[in-house]
Amino acid sequence: MQEFSKFPTKTGRRSLSRSISQSSTDSYSSAASYTDSSDDEVSPREKQQTNSKGNSNFCVKNIKQAEFGRREIEIAEQDMSALISLRKRAQGEKPLAGAKIVGCTHITAQTAVLIETLCALGAQCRWSACNIYSTQNEVAAALAEVGVAVFAWKGESEDDFWWCIDRCVNMDTWQPNMILDDGGDLTHWVYKKYPNVFKKIRGIVEESVTGVHRLYQLSKAGKLCVPAMNVNDSVTKQKFDNLYCCRESILDGLKRTTDVMFGGKQVVVCGYGEVGKGCCAALKALGGIVYITEIDPICALQACMDGFRVVKLNEVIRQMDVVITCTGNKNVVTREHLDRMKNSCIVCNMGHSNTEIDVASLRTPELTWERVRSQVDHVIWPDGKRVVLLAEGRLLNLSCSTVPTFVLSITATTQALALIELYNAPEGRYKQDVYLLPKKMDEYVASLHLPSFDAHLTELTDDQAKYLGLNKNGPFKPNYYRY
Amino acid sequence: MQEFSKFPTKTGRRSLSRSISQSSTDSYSSAASYTDSSDDEVSPREKQQTNSKGNSNFCVKNIKQAEFGRREIEIAEQDMSALISLRKRAQGEKPLAGAKIVGCTHITAQTAVLIETLCALGAQCRWSACNIYSTQNEVAAALAEVGVAVFAWKGESEDDFWWCIDRCVNMDTWQPNMILDDGGDLTHWVYKKYPNVFKKIRGIVEESVTGVHRLYQLSKAGKLCVPAMNVNDSVTKQKFDNLYCCRESILDGLKRTTDVMFGGKQVVVCGYGEVGKGCCAALKALGGIVYITEIDPICALQACMDGFRVVKLNEVIRQMDVVITCTGNKNVVTREHLDRMKNSCIVCNMGHSNTEIDVASLRTPELTWERVRSQVDHVIWPDGKRVVLLAEGRLLNLSCSTVPTFVLSITATTQALALIELYNAPEGRYKQDVYLLPKKMDEYVASLHLPSFDAHLTELTDDQAKYLGLNKNGPFKPNYYRY
Amino acid sequence: MQEFSKFPTKTGRRSLSRSISQSSTDSYSSAASYTDSSDDEVSPREKQQTNSKGNSNFCVKNIKQAEFGRREIEIAEQDMSALISLRKRAQGEKPLAGAKIVGCTHITAQTAVLIETLCALGAQCRWSACNIYSTQNEVAAALAEVGVAVFAWKGESEDDFWWCIDRCVNMDTWQPNMILDDGGDLTHWVYKKYPNVFKKIRGIVEESVTGVHRLYQLSKAGKLCVPAMNVNDSVTKQKFDNLYCCRESILDGLKRTTDVMFGGKQVVVCGYGEVGKGCCAALKALGGIVYITEIDPICALQACMDGFRVVKLNEVIRQMDVVITCTGNKNVVTREHLDRMKNSCIVCNMGHSNTEIDVASLRTPELTWERVRSQVDHVIWPDGKRVVLLAEGRLLNLSCSTVPTFVLSITATTQALALIELYNAPEGRYKQDVYLLPKKMDEYVASLHLPSFDAHLTELTDDQAKYLGLNKNGPFKPNYYRY
Amino acid sequence: MQEFSKFPTKTGRRSLSRSISQSSTDSYSSAASYTDSSDDEVSPREKQQTNSKGNSNFCVKNIKQAEFGRREIEIAEQDMSALISLRKRAQGEKPLAGAKIVGCTHITAQTAVLIETLCALGAQCRWSACNIYSTQNEVAAALAEVGVAVFAWKGESEDDFWWCIDRCVNMDTWQPNMILDDGGDLTHWVYKKYPNVFKKIRGIVEESVTGVHRLYQLSKAGKLCVPAMNVNDSVTKQKFDNLYCCRESILDGLKRTTDVMFGGKQVVVCGYGEVGKGCCAALKALGGIVYITEIDPICALQACMDGFRVVKLNEVIRQMDVVITCTGNKNVVTREHLDRMKNSCIVCNMGHSNTEIDVASLRTPELTWERVRSQVDHVIWPDGKRVVLLAEGRLLNLSCSTVPTFVLSITATTQALALIELYNAPEGRYKQDVYLLPKKMDEYVASLHLPSFDAHLTELTDDQAKYLGLNKNGPFKPNYYRY
Repeated sequence: MQEFSKFPTKTGRRSLSRSISQSSTDSYSSAASYTDSSDDEVSPREKQQTNSKGNSNFCVKNIKQAEFGRREIEIAEQDMSALISLRKRAQGEKPLAGAKIVGCTHITAQTAVLIETLCALGAQCRWSACNIYSTQNEVAAALAEVGVAVFAWKGESEDDFWWCIDRCVNMDTWQPNMILDDGGDLTHWVYKKYPNVFKKIRGIVEESVTGVHRLYQLSKAGKLCVPAMNVNDSVTKQKFDNLYCCRESILDGLKRTTDVMFGGKQVVVCGYGEVGKGCCAALKALGGIVYITEIDPICALQACMDGFRVVKLNEVIRQMDVVITCTGNKNVVTREHLDRMKNSCIVCNMGHSNTEIDVASLRTPELTWERVRSQVDHVIWPDGKRVVLLAEGRLLNLSCSTVPTFVLSITATTQALALIELYNAPEGRYKQDVYLLPKKMDEYVASLHLPSFDAHLTELTDDQAKYLGLNKNGPFKPNYYRY
Repeated sequence: MQEFSKFPTKTGRRSLSRSISQSSTDSYSSAASYTDSSDDEVSPREKQQTNSKGNSNFCVKNIKQAEFGRREIEIAEQDMSALISLRKRAQGEKPLAGAKIVGCTHITAQTAVLIETLCALGAQCRWSACNIYSTQNEVAAALAEVGVAVFAWKGESEDDFWWCIDRCVNMDTWQPNMILDDGGDLTHWVYKKYPNVFKKIRGIVEESVTGVHRLYQLSKAGKLCVPAMNVNDSVTKQKFDNLYCCRESILDGLKRTTDVMFGGKQVVVCGYGEVGKGCCAALKALGGIVYITEIDPICALQACMDGFRVVKLNEVIRQMDVVITCTGNKNVVTREHLDRMKNSCIVCNMGHSNTEIDVASLRTPELTWERVRSQVDHVIWPDGKRVVLLAEGRLLNLSCSTVPTFVLSITATTQALALIELYNAPEGRYKQDVYLLPKKMDEYVASLHLPSFDAHLTELTDDQAKYLGLNKNGPFKPNYYRY
Repeated sequence: MQEFSKFPTKTGRRSLSRSISQSSTDSYSSAASYTDSSDDEVSPREKQQTNSKGNSNFCVKNIKQAEFGRREIEIAEQDMSALISLRKRAQGEKPLAGAKIVGCTHITAQTAVLIETLCALGAQCRWSACNIYSTQNEVAAALAEVGVAVFAWKGESEDDFWWCIDRCVNMDTWQPNMILDDGGDLTHWVYKKYPNVFKKIRGIVEESVTGVHRLYQLSKAGKLCVPAMNVNDSVTKQKFDNLYCCRESILDGLKRTTDVMFGGKQVVVCGYGEVGKGCCAALKALGGIVYITEIDPICALQACMDGFRVVKLNEVIRQMDVVITCTGNKNVVTREHLDRMKNSCIVCNMGHSNTEIDVASLRTPELTWERVRSQVDHVIWPDGKRVVLLAEGRLLNLSCSTVPTFVLSITATTQALALIELYNAPEGRYKQDVYLLPKKMDEYVASLHLPSFDAHLTELTDDQAKYLGLNKNGPFKPNYYRY
Repeated sequence: MQEFSKFPTKTGRRSLSRSISQSSTDSYSSAASYTDSSDDEVSPREKQQTNSKGNSNFCVKNIKQAEFGRREIEIAEQDMSALISLRKRAQGEKPLAGAKIVGCTHITAQTAVLIETLCALGAQCRWSACNIYSTQNEVAAALAEVGVAVFAWKGESEDDFWWCIDRCVNMDTWQPNMILDDGGDLTHWVYKKYPNVFKKIRGIVEESVTGVHRLYQLSKAGKLCVPAMNVNDSVTKQKFDNLYCCRESILDGLKRTTDVMFGGKQVVVCGYGEVGKGCCAALKALGGIVYITEIDPICALQACMDGFRVVKLNEVIRQMDVVITCTGNKNVVTREHLDRMKNSCIVCNMGHSNTEIDVASLRTPELTWERVRSQVDHVIWPDGKRVVLLAEGRLLNLSCSTVPTFVLSITATTQALALIELYNAPEGRYKQDVYLLPKKMDEYVASLHLPSFDAHLTELTDDQAKYLGLNKNGPFKPNYYRY
């Protein structure tokens, strides 16, 4: 299983940001206050709990929080009408009848809506958390109350983490036939401990960058023994996770942490990919003066045409009020840059890991760190200059802003459709490889979300469909279409 | 003193929102967490406190918080460089030498920067709070520590409130010659209790809508006995308090309370004045689809040209995702409108009072109120429909977002210049009337804030000034210029 | 009559741009091609022409063009529904019954709609042209055909110009009682030649900057002997002539002359008044990177908050692709600036006169001028550098773009209402002074244009009107309101 | 050669719009006036002409126009610095030494810059026109003057057209080894008449949609006998031809034809692909209120998130001021829609063919057509309603606006690099198939255009390149990247 040997250390790995789509559980989220309440300190593993129907096939912090968790789920359902409509459309057929899904994701109100949708479509589910901090305890309780076998709580230890996963897989009486994973830990565990389980597995659905990367490595090495669906790269999910979501969260993250006024601020955004495009659009719209750095000439040309000056970072760094990284690269903002920033300059990261700003270089004796607010540090130079560092260089949108439920709905619906597709695909459609969601299903995800906007699609006439050489129901674009 | 008899009841009055410029003290502000700490319950009036120099000429919650308050003030100074530069420019001349200023404003880090600027310009100050809830205790302590006679704490009673004001005015050894007021309470108290004080007063500077209104009434009634400066209506302050500030705070307020995604949301904004213009620009920029209601055909025409549909509220109310009032009017959103809203519709107010949404009409037995978060109520109809009401219809930007220090800097600088102008004006320049800040000083306030943006003004040549018939140093526009 | 002695020389004066609102007759306009047709060379003054009813009380180029002119007028009527609705509303009352209006304006299809509206409201009209080049001959013919006494043609001589005006005023059988002027020439002529006419005149309506300036001078000198209405400064007209119109015409003017791509272009706009704001908004929206120069700190601060860098011209001149003046000032772009521009830099003027760019400084032997297209000169430096000068520094929007009929409708409606107001005002309402259109009528102009946008105004309830202290029918804002 | 039997009739075919990139020759373009000059009526084929060096190996309208044509080429060079820099970079190596290129494209100043660049890189060229109307005669003359064997003039007959192509290919002394085609006619002719020529051909570069389509058909049918490069679908060219170019040309086309004011106009854009996105962005930016129709749910969702209402055409058709098609589909606007439009509604097409609006349905007796201006028809209903039809439903941006030289520079540079790549590719890199330009060369095209914007690319450090797993010189993105 050498592919997995390249994994970062386990603790580190699980503190990586995976996908934006599952980030609603940070300290700013609506429900955060509730889960912070000081429960007793007994480990859930040592508690005996049963739900109101006498079922004890779960392990959560406190089953008594179920009612509160149910309300959170109901609120989430209001912005996840795509899943609700999926429940309705599938009412007769039960496309997941017989499916036994083992899942490992963040456990939040939004995931709960997904899990309960899978159940409504006919599946049985066992679930653990993909992150030791992100579980909403009351939501886990609500799931347990309605009979979902959930094993997760906020603040698990490393050992708890694997114990929970194991409890989902290692059952004499219940053999999973589908895997829904976020980060690849569940898949890893099955590979390592219970390889025989794969004989019954019809497919893996994986949504994180990291997990997808591992699957491609397995595939390349010829070790992927079931079909896998990469839902991370579906068009709809990508646009929402990056462009649309960042357009909103950059403003939210900056405002909640620093109360900065955007108007007239000089901002440099490093990287003009989808995340950078979203950040730039928002900041420009609110009166910021935005500069771009880019390594790719095509993206640089786009930045020019969109009205941004393309510069090298050291050309502008002295005059910037805000510096934002969105590159996926490392050491984009170096100590040298930090040394040259002006007083009160705000530095933050919207890219996909915490390496973009060389934060380590700031941990030197001559600099003083002052924590002025949650997620906000002033790093103070000997001459009194302060640089405002947000989230210690980790992802601003994960740490300091929330993700709208609607964005999570896109992801969850994509996951549900991928499960349905893999579970129902005729023999031979999918081999032991990694697949993207078929474009037609990607379009279906989009179409399920249009009613939220009261948007009305136009249908092709027979004549038009023939003229265009298209099926009236799609797919409407070739695979390489750039949207 | 019949003018004052029209005042709302005192408690009600002081819970009115006055000006946006002094709103940084709500529960979301940076320092909020600190002042929430549970101090002992002894009234400050009963405590004996002295600062480190043995001075006890103040009354604050806890003098020991001074150091922390000092840091808050220092952070505020970073975004108030206009006042700092005013200190520097006036270093030699001390334009307020001899001035004895009695003030009644919100007491926040930003006000502290103002007060300390006034002192640096030569003035002596005594200060109380214009709002019983808005005092940052640690800031008051920091002021007391450096010798300012401050009488204020968070959570004053009605009686405390007037006691504090009285302690500022009623001194044998110290007679004020200038008044800086925010809301008119201080002015009212002096009129009522110590009319003789006006003999020495050179002028009143008032920044709130309410206070200015009262002054005009006094003037109209022939009872204004000193010159007064209306700083509320200076161009610079108005643009920042309304257009620019609301452009940012509407997003912030909605996001912090509801985590709503803006993209694709259908929003109706009632009123297309400066506040409405700011809200619309921001929401449109982030992908909202915005409709306007207006009573004034000129503003309506502007809305059209700016790309918004102008509608009557009842024409669109059924399909809206968000309803925002910015009219200054009352009952703009009625129970009938609320009845017709769709599930999950968000309703909030950005106008100048809490009357715009008929919240009272929602206090009926068939509707259930559910507090889902601070400042967020779900009002639930019998059929399960939920309307999301923010801040119970009070000002969203005061209740649920913060005001950037830069905006407060504009106001504070305007106040400082108004005090200097009135104090130094030659006999006869100002009569017993209400004046606007001279345009030249309004321009000066603006110019003091340009360095923050690294903006470089162009100077007229002699020849050009002559051609335009202007003084090279301004004023540059006629009074009626619309900006 | 010394006020008039300050006038520029007559020929020069009439080549001044007056108001944007009457500029549709330049060489790019729709009808231009028609009037360019080579008519015979006999002066209209020497021709004997009669219309189809035998009337010969006019002097136009060619009465036979009437039918074609009528079609132009009908097309214009489609975008001037405000005037059409004014005709309808006033059908019974004829508010201008008895009015004898002598007018001197550009004579275009749009003016014709105005003139025919005045007639429909009961007035008799005699009309001449305020510009020797701007008359649409076919429109003049169409007016003559329906009996309007019009004296104007394209390409009048200086002598023709005054002859035409004189033919309007100098009648034994017809004494005017109202004047509608654009530029002040008609008013000047009456003052100079027929001062007695003023005894019957109830008022002057003047729409140009120049003409209004003269009226204020007369008033100041105590020589204004009738009331005058300044329609140039009405809110609605101002916004359309400047902000909204320039937002569109800057793009149009640049594109028609140079086919320049806007995306990524670096542009400096000198002046951030209404014209500058319009230009900047459009250029930024299409991907331009815009810099501002300003002398007024308040406008400069607005530019900052709107997301523009405020610079001095010489700081950025080397890197600019386009330079646009909107100041109303002179020598804003000097030879020194022009020397430092880069190759292919485009220079043009959107301000109110042709003095902003020091074009004269380019008429030196070492520079070569090359006319590459109508209104486009390449000025070539000895090293081969070319600067692209548009319209020789005259107004770009007058010379190289058209003005939408809708904008002209605003002006024409304002003029019509001003005439009605002055003609019907009770004795004493207006003295021998210059007045702005009452705000209520300004609002009425706006309201007449709302149906074009299918915009629906909201009406105040009695209760709301009382709360706001407003009349339900307006005016809705104080005079100083800034919109 | 049955693939070619599906071709439209020849005349029809060549009036098809192919690619936007070669559209600068319509009647609005800068040089149009010059080529309209009435030359003598003798066919160029019958003239004996020699250039100043005695060379007569060409056939153009009038060799004497060479000097004027040269100036046009020089002006074009100013905006095509990418090609100029290509000339410089390749100075030593001459990457096209030995290349004998036969070309068939529009012959314009911009193409001339391309042809002369190919020559500068070492190639010999023979050239004909791909469109019987689009040749700029003076440019052809200038090319002939410097020795390019060009056979083209404006207003060729069908017979002339093929004669010119034949003269390029059918030479005893000169055998082409590269083909540059635009539309496929040249390729078709060689296939049909001189199939043996393909033995020496190293590759075909084709830029039009139509020509590319034919090549794919040939390839599918196994009849493509040389490698072909599809430059139409390169990222950079696509973005400029569609999104960026249409963002500008929609405004230009509407303004030049109708002088319409954009502010407040209600517009429906059919299709939200790249062209639609460009149109919508521009119109919204200038104050239009834009609605979208879409068949593809993903594009529809993008429209929602970008702030547009997604509707069916018949839901909004009654209230629209402007209707724009950008679908590539047929009969998107039907007679039924046209019947329901309001008076003065403007209808135009920005999509890729003239079928989107059912113009044929308007050719019925009860409707009157009135040509009011070049490219503008009023179609008049019996009740007087007028619909304003632009360019008779053909492409607005080809017929009524110009294409910036910069956009053409992108295309020309892409063509040049494709020729270099194919000509120099080692044996076996390209087979008898159709290829996209390698991403690295696409990036190179982009990079050559960055200096125009003074844009500065950031270079990866070795360490960063390793971290990202990228070559420091690109390509920087995977092939499926969506930009």
